[in-house]
Amino acid sequence: MGLLKLRCVKFLTNVTKRSALLHYRSLTAASFKYDDLQVTLTDKKQEKPDPNNLLFGHNFSDHMLQVEWTRDDGWGKPVISPLTNLSIHPGAGAKCHRSNILCHSNYERHFRNIIFCILANSTLFEGMKAYRGVDDKIRMFRPFENMKRMKSTADRAYLPDFDAEELVKCMKKLLQIDREWVPYSTKSSLYLRPTFIGTEPTLGVTKSASALLYVLTGPVGPYYPTGMNPVTLLADPQYVRAWPGGCGNFKMGSNYGPTIKISAEADKKGCQQVLWLYGDDHQLTEVGAMNLFVYWINEQGEKCLGEFKVTERSYTMAEVTKALNENRLKEMFGAGTACVVSPVEKILYIDNMLNIPTMSEGAPVTMRFLKELTDIHYGRTISDWCEPIE
Amino acid sequence: MGLLKLRCVKFLTNVTKRSALLHYRSLTAASFKYDDLQVTLTDKKQEKPDPNNLLFGHNFSDHMLQVEWTRDDGWGKPVISPLTNLSIHPGAGAKCHRSNILCHSNYERHFRNIIFCILANSTLFEGMKAYRGVDDKIRMFRPFENMKRMKSTADRAYLPDFDAEELVKCMKKLLQIDREWVPYSTKSSLYLRPTFIGTEPTLGVTKSASALLYVLTGPVGPYYPTGMNPVTLLADPQYVRAWPGGCGNFKMGSNYGPTIKISAEADKKGCQQVLWLYGDDHQLTEVGAMNLFVYWINEQGEKCLGEFKVTERSYTMAEVTKALNENRLKEMFGAGTACVVSPVEKILYIDNMLNIPTMSEGAPVTMRFLKELTDIHYGRTISDWCEPIE
Repeated sequence: MGLLKLRCVKFLTNVTKRSALLHYRSLTAASFKYDDLQVTLTDKKQEKPDPNNLLFGHNFSDHMLQVEWTRDDGWGKPVISPLTNLSIHPGAGAKCHRSNILCHSNYERHFRNIIFCILANSTLFEGMKAYRGVDDKIRMFRPFENMKRMKSTADRAYLPDFDAEELVKCMKKLLQIDREWVPYSTKSSLYLRPTFIGTEPTLGVTKSASALLYVLTGPVGPYYPTGMNPVTLLADPQYVRAWPGGCGNFKMGSNYGPTIKISAEADKKGCQQVLWLYGDDHQLTEVGAMNLFVYWINEQGEKCLGEFKVTERSYTMAEVTKALNENRLKEMFGAGTACVVSPVEKILYIDNMLNIPTMSEGAPVTMRFLKELTDIHYGRTISDWCEPIE
Repeated sequence: MGLLKLRCVKFLTNVTKRSALLHYRSLTAASFKYDDLQVTLTDKKQEKPDPNNLLFGHNFSDHMLQVEWTRDDGWGKPVISPLTNLSIHPGAGAKCHRSNILCHSNYERHFRNIIFCILANSTLFEGMKAYRGVDDKIRMFRPFENMKRMKSTADRAYLPDFDAEELVKCMKKLLQIDREWVPYSTKSSLYLRPTFIGTEPTLGVTKSASALLYVLTGPVGPYYPTGMNPVTLLADPQYVRAWPGGCGNFKMGSNYGPTIKISAEADKKGCQQVLWLYGDDHQLTEVGAMNLFVYWINEQGEKCLGEFKVTERSYTMAEVTKALNENRLKEMFGAGTACVVSPVEKILYIDNMLNIPTMSEGAPVTMRFLKELTDIHYGRTISDWCEPIE
């Protein structure tokens, strides 16, 4: 490859990260247990959608996982139940069982709590995927990395802790039950959406005395309907997604709502995604909700024989512009769970359209990165990044 | 009074505010109309709680207001209905009428949408109050100031615009219907919680094709159960609530979730509220969710005969510390809808407890401010800040 560096930007300032991780966790460290899992199967399976025409986040599998927590009683038993649990049981005034969202007044309570807790916004989520391999085995991709972030986000959101092993075991069971929902396709996958919300029914902004952790799954195609078409990014320093002392490095729901209008601004200007900048020197921090990778020759023209030298550091729009002018910038792409890999073609930076030569020679590094990743996803390469489902 | 200044900190950088207000509003500017209001009264009124023992945000009046919006059809008709609309109608498969949350599948849709939209977090709210005056008239306090902020927040959250006059008329009707819920007390009031959420049922972070605006009301006593007891504040520069280019100056739900853990940190250190700092010079920006007022003699010893000179500007912890050391700082208090006025007694600033002399002479300015405000609230002073309810 020669002369090149692959660089990745870090999610956010380590100052915040360190201080958050050092905090004493006052809430219970006890966890729900896989061994307590209660399973109720649906008697009415839904029809599965065409795996070649999947829109992201619009289809849901037959079952879901739920676990309730209360301050008084701690974690309840995990429950796998039909997704139709979200519909209303017609029996009025039914007796309520704990951890049973089906029954009338429990459902009412959930609904009411959720309406209220939206305001307090103790919400967090994760995005994970399971793939059907060419060997017909189903594999989760790096679930414990998601669990690590989910636990640290729960801490920041002041929601209770749990045991990652137990949650992964419950999710594996959910995947076994809905295994036919994992698409028979090496373009698609099953998306898992663990979600964790405070459900305290009060209008005040307060720590929650109750919480609900639930996991929905659903088959997804490519995140961007245009597929691997390269994207144009809007890089406008007037909008800032995250800052030191904030919580941009956690997967809190509150990081995403404020981005919707800016995405619409990008759309109006012909850009598909927002490249988030930070600071007076316009550091590149994140693209949409993905990490950003740049493949370039550094200013010393440094050679890295045979393979890449990978560096994770802050870098600025001035560096990008200079590298472009000196023909040292070769490829740029975003990478994340939902999109996997998304090549960057242009950046609209303060009314100046920068052309990124990612695709000019067929994006060899981007494509190789994609191939390596998808070979692991679909079991063409066996890797310990995958957790197989029996 | 002599020699003194009353200072108030601005909510957040004006840079953000200006840029947001200048933006073109792409969503429909049409509004729902009060004249279309549909009212369904409850046949089962709830018992009202003791007005002397009200906890903030725990009691709800009999009725609520709802208006739905969809991208295709715009605003629906506003609906006032029993709060028990949130409970489940026992009739399964009932026919659905638009804007009627009562019926089965509509309810299901709402619930499902709300579960999903929590993640996108296009949520915003307002906090307003109505008071029963000593003349038994009911008055809303400055509702159009809340409407101004609610409209600018809706713009930032990429939710549709509406006509403030129409919403206020609908809320007045809601207050007329639930007028007996406005406490017969000059310590309590009726809190109004207008809420506006995107309800698009997708897991993607995207602008919403549907939205729900609803208003809950409920009687409230003092926000702080300890009443006018002065508070101790935690001022820790490692936590930052808002940032230029962010949306700290809007009433988005996403501003509040991240504060819950920091409030718990404050609590552990014996502080009741967080004093949010910003920047390397530790500017004071907000206390809890209130504005902060400081009453002091400026460095020039400036006299302001007869009355206060009011200044709104940024100021820093260094200024506060210096004024304290020179005995120029006299009183400090927070002010907001929920608490009205909250005197500050101490600030824990980087492990150093600063004693604020607010109460040392009975807080004459704070108390006068509180009296002037509550005289307006309860109709002892007639002011055009109030909107009377017929």
